[in-house]
Amino acid sequence: MEYLECLFCQKTYPLNLFDPFCPDCYEPLLYHYAPKKRSIRREKDWPLERYSEFLPQLELQPELRLGEGDTPLLKLERIKETYKLPLLFAKNEALNPTSSFKDRGTVAAVAKAISLGIDRIGTVSTGNMANSTAAYGAKAGLKTFVLVKDDISRTKLLTTAVHKPAFIAVKGDYGDLFRKSFDIGHKHRIYFMNSVDPMRIEGYKIPGFEIFAQLGFHVPDYVFVPVSSGGHLIGLMRGFLDMKTQGLSEHLPVFIGVQARGCSPIASAFASGKTRVERIDRPQTIAHAISNPDPPGGNILLKMIREFKGMVIEVNDQEILKAQRILAESEGLFCMPASATTLAGLIKLSKKKSFRPSDHVVLVITGSGVKALDALESSKISVRHTALSDLEEQIKSLI
Amino acid sequence: MEYLECLFCQKTYPLNLFDPFCPDCYEPLLYHYAPKKRSIRREKDWPLERYSEFLPQLELQPELRLGEGDTPLLKLERIKETYKLPLLFAKNEALNPTSSFKDRGTVAAVAKAISLGIDRIGTVSTGNMANSTAAYGAKAGLKTFVLVKDDISRTKLLTTAVHKPAFIAVKGDYGDLFRKSFDIGHKHRIYFMNSVDPMRIEGYKIPGFEIFAQLGFHVPDYVFVPVSSGGHLIGLMRGFLDMKTQGLSEHLPVFIGVQARGCSPIASAFASGKTRVERIDRPQTIAHAISNPDPPGGNILLKMIREFKGMVIEVNDQEILKAQRILAESEGLFCMPASATTLAGLIKLSKKKSFRPSDHVVLVITGSGVKALDALESSKISVRHTALSDLEEQIKSLI
Repeated sequence: MEYLECLFCQKTYPLNLFDPFCPDCYEPLLYHYAPKKRSIRREKDWPLERYSEFLPQLELQPELRLGEGDTPLLKLERIKETYKLPLLFAKNEALNPTSSFKDRGTVAAVAKAISLGIDRIGTVSTGNMANSTAAYGAKAGLKTFVLVKDDISRTKLLTTAVHKPAFIAVKGDYGDLFRKSFDIGHKHRIYFMNSVDPMRIEGYKIPGFEIFAQLGFHVPDYVFVPVSSGGHLIGLMRGFLDMKTQGLSEHLPVFIGVQARGCSPIASAFASGKTRVERIDRPQTIAHAISNPDPPGGNILLKMIREFKGMVIEVNDQEILKAQRILAESEGLFCMPASATTLAGLIKLSKKKSFRPSDHVVLVITGSGVKALDALESSKISVRHTALSDLEEQIKSLI
Repeated sequence: MEYLECLFCQKTYPLNLFDPFCPDCYEPLLYHYAPKKRSIRREKDWPLERYSEFLPQLELQPELRLGEGDTPLLKLERIKETYKLPLLFAKNEALNPTSSFKDRGTVAAVAKAISLGIDRIGTVSTGNMANSTAAYGAKAGLKTFVLVKDDISRTKLLTTAVHKPAFIAVKGDYGDLFRKSFDIGHKHRIYFMNSVDPMRIEGYKIPGFEIFAQLGFHVPDYVFVPVSSGGHLIGLMRGFLDMKTQGLSEHLPVFIGVQARGCSPIASAFASGKTRVERIDRPQTIAHAISNPDPPGGNILLKMIREFKGMVIEVNDQEILKAQRILAESEGLFCMPASATTLAGLIKLSKKKSFRPSDHVVLVITGSGVKALDALESSKISVRHTALSDLEEQIKSLI
């Protein structure tokens, strides 16, 4: 028997993935684990297997694998030098199969669906999670319902539609759609693996374990993560907490959640000392992937990040776009605006706070820029046009 | 001292990456290795280091790494069953840092540039190689010249421009531009790492070694590869030849090069028994990434593939688009049309030729579909629109 728990009411409930919310306070439920000695199975090639002792019970079928995980941890030497930063790394989650960290959660949730004999899955998403769920649903051969808002970008629409899910664009409020999906899912036995799904959150622990292994089995000092629903950072924090609980590490990183100023309900609540996140009315930011005005994991995130002495900060669109350019131009790394909040946040924080030169700082790059080309400022794009006969002169002028 | 050799004239020349063509027959030169016992350095994490004994001398700087290589080898169980195929795998090179196999060649060539103290690099490309070279040039901090045709797609333009190379769109014939780049490069010490660059071709050996390792240190029976300039398949064949020469394997795979019917100069020459590839006049195919009417590596490829008892075949655009859909819908794998030629070729060949059930067949998926969304047929894209109030009815109708 497996259980979910409410972090606020401190109660546990038998696992029910169709309705994973606390019946008393309506907060998302998280997996509850019995105390047990757990270890990394280092010899295993598939991350889901390698860290399986830290995950819920899964019958792992290798056929489900699309190549998620084992993403690179890149040294950002040039940015470190230019901005006089400590030891700087990027965990590039854009190199997952559908180009975002969402695949980490999706593969865990889909594996659980299969383990439980659930044959209908779904998601409510603004883009990257739709794409990820459609791809894994196709790979697993499950009936897959993808619900999006009707203003989804064409790129995200197409990359999802190619996998041929039951694909529905819904007119209406996104928060209402999110809640309604669980009503429908509960009734019709469709497992909606949305942003704060407990299994999805467990999947987000794995990149944390990988960072630990990639740093030679040491935890970094700081981890910067873009924050939208809250699910991703909650998962990462739970992963590092597992390492500490199991004696693999002695301390936790300082977690820095970063939001875009145009939609920063969690950062606002953090700054003003509140314990509840308040819904934002008119979100407005270039970082669409983290533009969530009513983040379902917000209250849990606030509680955990305060306990762990981390923080949630905000950066504006100019800072985000500048950080995106710096990563592309200095490090060959083209990420989506939401991911660039991490570097923007670090640069901003480094003006107020002094890091030690030996500090290890990890930026979690959540997704690729390729799926968010609309966000690029055309004024910054420079291409010269020339005839073949004038090419040599043109090149000479650029040397 | 390192040497290049001409496979046709059987002569060697001191290494000169600014002009790597045979002075007698003008064919591309390839690396020449002295006979020597070589081994895989299994303990090394970076593929470029792991297989360094099979590569030219390189001073490897980990800072150059963007996370290329160690791409997944996926089992395509569902397609295997549906089409009664042998054991089927996809080597997904789309999970390289800039979403294509080009990164394999680029990182090797850029590492060589740095080893030789060359500080200006360049490429002539229709898209993916431009993106890859711009990214690695940025990471290495080299002055990088990217020359493209002026009809390059907006997606490929933007994903390249973000890395801020010296970026020039040239009006004129692509073949002329290819040749002219070497004249200019030679004069101004710019190392143009174009499609059949000898160092690039050596880099393409590495995914071959990875496939071998991923199959438990066995070579597959068949390897299907999209063919454009010829460089990629030449590199893969050289890798498997190394394994055989060094006694790591007993046989070579059967290599099947696949071209798109609307631009298949190498397949045509192969079918008609010619030893020279003839230039195509009006290429016309949805598979833009392999639409090369005058492939510079064509003659070498023909010579090698005949020696190795492989073949070069062609498939039409309908077969390509169908294969692309099958991969996305049945296996969760969204590749560019050029990559789908491999499955299209296998399905076509399986109607004429019987494979053994135990045969291991590998399709090399060269790049992601995300950068080629224009190729999708909108008639096949299915999205339903509904209001929130009608959502449940809509979902019930789809169960």
